[in-house]
Amino acid sequence: MLVVQKYGGTSVGDLERIKNVARRIAKYRDEGHDVVVVVSAMAGETDRLLKLAYDLVEEPSPRELDMLVATGEQVSSALLAMALNAMGYPAKALLAFQIPIKTDELFGKARIRDIATKRLKEELAKGQVLIVAGFQGITDEGDITTLGRGGSDTTAVAIAAALGADVCEIFTDVDGVYTADPRIVPKARKIAKISYEEMLELASMGAKVLEIRSVEFAKIYRVPVHVRSSFSYEPGTMVVEEDESMEKVLVSGIAYNRNEARISLYGVPDKPGIASRIFGPIAEAGIVVDMIIQTGRPDGKADMTFTVPKTDYKATLKLVNELAPEIGIEKIEGDEDIAKVSIVGAGMRAHPGVAAKMFQVLADHGINIHMISTSEIKISCVIDEKYTELAVRALHEAFGLDRAPEEETS
Amino acid sequence: MLVVQKYGGTSVGDLERIKNVARRIAKYRDEGHDVVVVVSAMAGETDRLLKLAYDLVEEPSPRELDMLVATGEQVSSALLAMALNAMGYPAKALLAFQIPIKTDELFGKARIRDIATKRLKEELAKGQVLIVAGFQGITDEGDITTLGRGGSDTTAVAIAAALGADVCEIFTDVDGVYTADPRIVPKARKIAKISYEEMLELASMGAKVLEIRSVEFAKIYRVPVHVRSSFSYEPGTMVVEEDESMEKVLVSGIAYNRNEARISLYGVPDKPGIASRIFGPIAEAGIVVDMIIQTGRPDGKADMTFTVPKTDYKATLKLVNELAPEIGIEKIEGDEDIAKVSIVGAGMRAHPGVAAKMFQVLADHGINIHMISTSEIKISCVIDEKYTELAVRALHEAFGLDRAPEEETS
Repeated sequence: MLVVQKYGGTSVGDLERIKNVARRIAKYRDEGHDVVVVVSAMAGETDRLLKLAYDLVEEPSPRELDMLVATGEQVSSALLAMALNAMGYPAKALLAFQIPIKTDELFGKARIRDIATKRLKEELAKGQVLIVAGFQGITDEGDITTLGRGGSDTTAVAIAAALGADVCEIFTDVDGVYTADPRIVPKARKIAKISYEEMLELASMGAKVLEIRSVEFAKIYRVPVHVRSSFSYEPGTMVVEEDESMEKVLVSGIAYNRNEARISLYGVPDKPGIASRIFGPIAEAGIVVDMIIQTGRPDGKADMTFTVPKTDYKATLKLVNELAPEIGIEKIEGDEDIAKVSIVGAGMRAHPGVAAKMFQVLADHGINIHMISTSEIKISCVIDEKYTELAVRALHEAFGLDRAPEEETS
Repeated sequence: MLVVQKYGGTSVGDLERIKNVARRIAKYRDEGHDVVVVVSAMAGETDRLLKLAYDLVEEPSPRELDMLVATGEQVSSALLAMALNAMGYPAKALLAFQIPIKTDELFGKARIRDIATKRLKEELAKGQVLIVAGFQGITDEGDITTLGRGGSDTTAVAIAAALGADVCEIFTDVDGVYTADPRIVPKARKIAKISYEEMLELASMGAKVLEIRSVEFAKIYRVPVHVRSSFSYEPGTMVVEEDESMEKVLVSGIAYNRNEARISLYGVPDKPGIASRIFGPIAEAGIVVDMIIQTGRPDGKADMTFTVPKTDYKATLKLVNELAPEIGIEKIEGDEDIAKVSIVGAGMRAHPGVAAKMFQVLADHGINIHMISTSEIKISCVIDEKYTELAVRALHEAFGLDRAPEEETS
């Protein structure tokens, strides 16, 4: 079996943990598997490097910033390969330029274009364990790029796809994907199997187990991903293609996000092109708008509500206030104290009435809904932030997630 | 003018100092010069990385060790380029693989084979300041190598040679090469100009200002090297080809070395092949022998004395004691408390009697000489360690180094 494994920063956070990871890899070798390992920087290292740069200058040049932070993974991959070699398991650390992992030139958030498999395959055939520095790539000109936060997940999935690996194991400090945040819902359970689509929805809601681009990659190339803990040998959560068993489960998980703020524009002239005149300047300012809702009014005008990251709230308010006179917006209002609560499940497609049930549950607990948005397998409601925990717990119970799924009890 | 500059670890030891170096480089740009800069790792960083490796495993795999420590220069070169860019001076950090700087495959002490100048010249033509990560190279297979301690000096001189630079400036924390160690000889003076050969002899004696291989490189490719302080704008010491003015100076400097130990073998059979039977096993153990002296005895046997680094003293003693019965050595003796004191000067060639004067000076101070070795421009004497300071000061005065040279007073 060809296994691609990824170990996060906490898993290689100190020398003792690096040795633990080496022992874990050795076990796979003893079982006869070929192993390619992708590592993140040791916990805290990327932040230390970023601090160096931003303490030095206000705006570090992007090319050099990537060259700087890429050293974090260079260090951890070299150390892990050393640990394996010392244990008698031949291992080679490989940097992006040595494979190469080609990306575009968007420093700080580069996208992988191509991974050459020749050297990887040759080294594997020689019985080497390959330790690949995650998070980094190389442009056609030979400049070092980084893939953005969580990029090591993407490196791992992309390598698994390129090599046609049997599985891509993402080792992290949690032991899988849960039906809800266990800090909020004590009865939350680990999900044994989840579809790429569901995982995408959960990841986009801020469930930090998997970087969203890595899930997209896995979905496109159909890479089975196993999210599991580096501190135990228990199985975690398999992220795979949707199958029949998944459709039986109405709701797979409850997610929430407290990092957004709401802005409402009242009395917007309801004519063609108005939305782009509002959201064009916001996009140009680099602000990512999440939910957008527009409703007509009897007077021919429209009301428009949308959410932006809390960190961009003030800048967005300033922008729309500047636009207001020109466009003819009557009134602008905003609210930072909101939360988005979502239910996610592949089974929704086949079962009507899930949305109605969600609204009823929230109403039963006296929780007012400010915004609603839906996708095929997700329903999100924006509510007052103070009700977040209550809403998540109530939905978790109402959709039967407090108890083990039928397949497991029968 | 095309200037290659090298800044050592102390010169880029913290962010404030990196900014200082950036300002210094900016000054050269303002004067219209093209500048290629070679940087070492920030002071302490290489040791920190080595400690990580040796805390992890007893014997780190050499390939991965080089990959690990090479990050030190990657960090400092990226930071320095950022500082320059922020000041409005376009700068690019370049790693060995990006140039490339090709070396052999001797990890940890690789030798530079070739430096491609195409990219360097193109970037210089675009008005870029180039910040090259020192100390590192790349093999034909794309593995990262390091050149060994002090390797950044070699990188700088090699790049200066490859580009045909007008001067290679080595910025360090001392302001030049001195006639003797100023900590021992308060009257020691900075030498304005010194020949490659003299510098080689001084460097091999442990004068830490310039790495010896960089001087060899400079000599072969006739690169004018300027050793100077990164904390002032005062001129330092020019290391150049020997010229007439240098021959007038009898002795340029006094050096000493307390890091060696002496081993004497008495009654060694005086027959062909005996030296290789003794020194072969020592070389195989990786021990570098410095001075070797052999003298015949009336009884047809020989006495042999040699010096090794103090750190290898015990291992060498053990080795020769094991060889003794087989070879027929009568007696073995050793002494760790020795020092080597040397006088160096291109003028010696033209002036007989320098050696005699040195022996006389030592005798006048009651200092016994255990070993003598000479080269064209150097005379070294091994004495008891406790006399080191006395010997250096006495020689410094006797050869007229306490006062400024004639050229400067006239």
